[in-house]
Amino acid sequence: MASESVILSLENPVFFTYVLAASLMLLKLLLQPWMTVYRMMKVRAGFRSPEDAKKSPLNPTPVTGQLALNEYVDRSRRMNLNDLESIPAFLIAGLLFVLMDPPLLLAQVLIWAYVLARAAHFIAYATAQLHDVRATIWTVSSVAVIAMVIYTLVRLFTSAQ
Amino acid sequence: MASESVILSLENPVFFTYVLAASLMLLKLLLQPWMTVYRMMKVRAGFRSPEDAKKSPLNPTPVTGQLALNEYVDRSRRMNLNDLESIPAFLIAGLLFVLMDPPLLLAQVLIWAYVLARAAHFIAYATAQLHDVRATIWTVSSVAVIAMVIYTLVRLFTSAQ
Amino acid sequence: MASESVILSLENPVFFTYVLAASLMLLKLLLQPWMTVYRMMKVRAGFRSPEDAKKSPLNPTPVTGQLALNEYVDRSRRMNLNDLESIPAFLIAGLLFVLMDPPLLLAQVLIWAYVLARAAHFIAYATAQLHDVRATIWTVSSVAVIAMVIYTLVRLFTSAQ
Repeated sequence: MASESVILSLENPVFFTYVLAASLMLLKLLLQPWMTVYRMMKVRAGFRSPEDAKKSPLNPTPVTGQLALNEYVDRSRRMNLNDLESIPAFLIAGLLFVLMDPPLLLAQVLIWAYVLARAAHFIAYATAQLHDVRATIWTVSSVAVIAMVIYTLVRLFTSAQ
Repeated sequence: MASESVILSLENPVFFTYVLAASLMLLKLLLQPWMTVYRMMKVRAGFRSPEDAKKSPLNPTPVTGQLALNEYVDRSRRMNLNDLESIPAFLIAGLLFVLMDPPLLLAQVLIWAYVLARAAHFIAYATAQLHDVRATIWTVSSVAVIAMVIYTLVRLFTSAQ
Repeated sequence: MASESVILSLENPVFFTYVLAASLMLLKLLLQPWMTVYRMMKVRAGFRSPEDAKKSPLNPTPVTGQLALNEYVDRSRRMNLNDLESIPAFLIAGLLFVLMDPPLLLAQVLIWAYVLARAAHFIAYATAQLHDVRATIWTVSSVAVIAMVIYTLVRLFTSAQ
C-alpha cells in the first residue's frame, strides 16, 4: 500500500476524483433543506413546529392548517431523508475506499456511477416518476457504495495474510 | 503523536480494527433500506409517496391503503432512522479517535463493544423485544462512541500543554 | 499543498481547531437522543414502537395513549433530525476542507461560526423561539458549511491547472 501522504494528495487522481464527487454530494445534501424552505415559503404550509404557525415577518398572515402535512413540502423532506440515508454513507465509505488505494478506473466507475445515479434519483423523485424508475436508479447508487465497502473488506483480508 | 502516515496504514492494528468495524457498520447502514424494500414488496403496503401506489410492474394490482402506515414496514424504517442517529457518528468519531493514536486494547474494547451492541440492537428491534432490553443495548453503543469522543478531547488538551 | 502528515497533526492549528469543534458537535449529536430519552421517561409518553407501551421496569404502569405523538418528546426528536441533516455534513465537509490546507483565520471563522450557530439553534429550538429566529440562526450554520465546500472545490480546480 502506498503511503497515505501520497494517497490523500490532490496529485493522486483517485483522491482528486473522490474530493470532487464528495463536494458535489455535500452540496446536494446541504441544498436540499433549502428546497424545503423554498417550498414552505411558497405555499406557506407544511410547517412542523407549533411556533412556526405564529404571526411573524416570515409568516405575516397565519391561517389554520399551516402545520398540517403538505405533500409539496413533505416531498422535499422525504428527498432530504433519502439523502441522509445515502450520502453520509457514500462519503465515509468512499474515503475508506480511497485509503485502500484502488485502481483509478474502478474508483472512477464506482464514484461517478453513484453521483450520476443520485442526480437521476433527484429528478425522478422531484418529478414524482413511477416508483419503479426511482427504485431502479436508487439500486444503482446503493450497489455502487456497497461495492466500495466490499473492495475495502477484500483489501483488509488480503493485507492481513 | 506518531506520524499520520503510520496511523492510517493497515499495518497499524488500531486502524485495521477501525476499518474492519467501519466497513461492517457501513454494510449494516446500507442494507437496512433493503430490508424496508423487502418488507414493502412482501406486504405491498407501507409505501410513502403517492406515485408508489400507481399500477406498475412492481405494483401490478394496486389496492387502497397502500400509502397508510404499516407497522411491519415502518419498523424497518425506524431501525434505519436509528442507524442514521448512531452509525455516521460512530464512523467519524472513530476516525478522529484513531488519529489520536489510542492504545490498541482501548480501541478494540470500544470499537467491538459498539459493533456487538449494534448487532444485538438490530435483533432486539427486529424481534420487538421489550423496550428495556433495546434501551440497555442502545446505551452500550452510545456510551462507547461518547467515550471515543472524550478520549479525543482529552488528547487535544494534553497535546496543547 | 503541504504533506498530509503535517496536515493531520495536532501541531497544525487548523486540524486542532477542526478536531476540537468536531468533537463538540459529535457530543451534541450523541447527547440529543438522551434528551429524547429523558423527556420520554419524564412524561411516560411519546413512545414510538408498540412494544414500548408494554408493562416493564421502565414503564411500570402503562396507560393508553403512550404511543401517541407527544409534542414535548417530538420536539427533541425534531431537534435530533435537524442535527442529522447538519452535523454529519459539517464533519465530513470540515475534514475535506482541512485537507485543502486553508488559511487558519478562514478556518477558525467558518468552523466557530458553525459551532456557535448550532449552539444558538439548540437554544432557539428547545425554547420554541419564533420561526424567524431559528431560521436565521440555521442559515448561518448552513452557509458556513457551504462555504467550506466551495473553498474545497476552488482548491480542486486551482490545483488542476
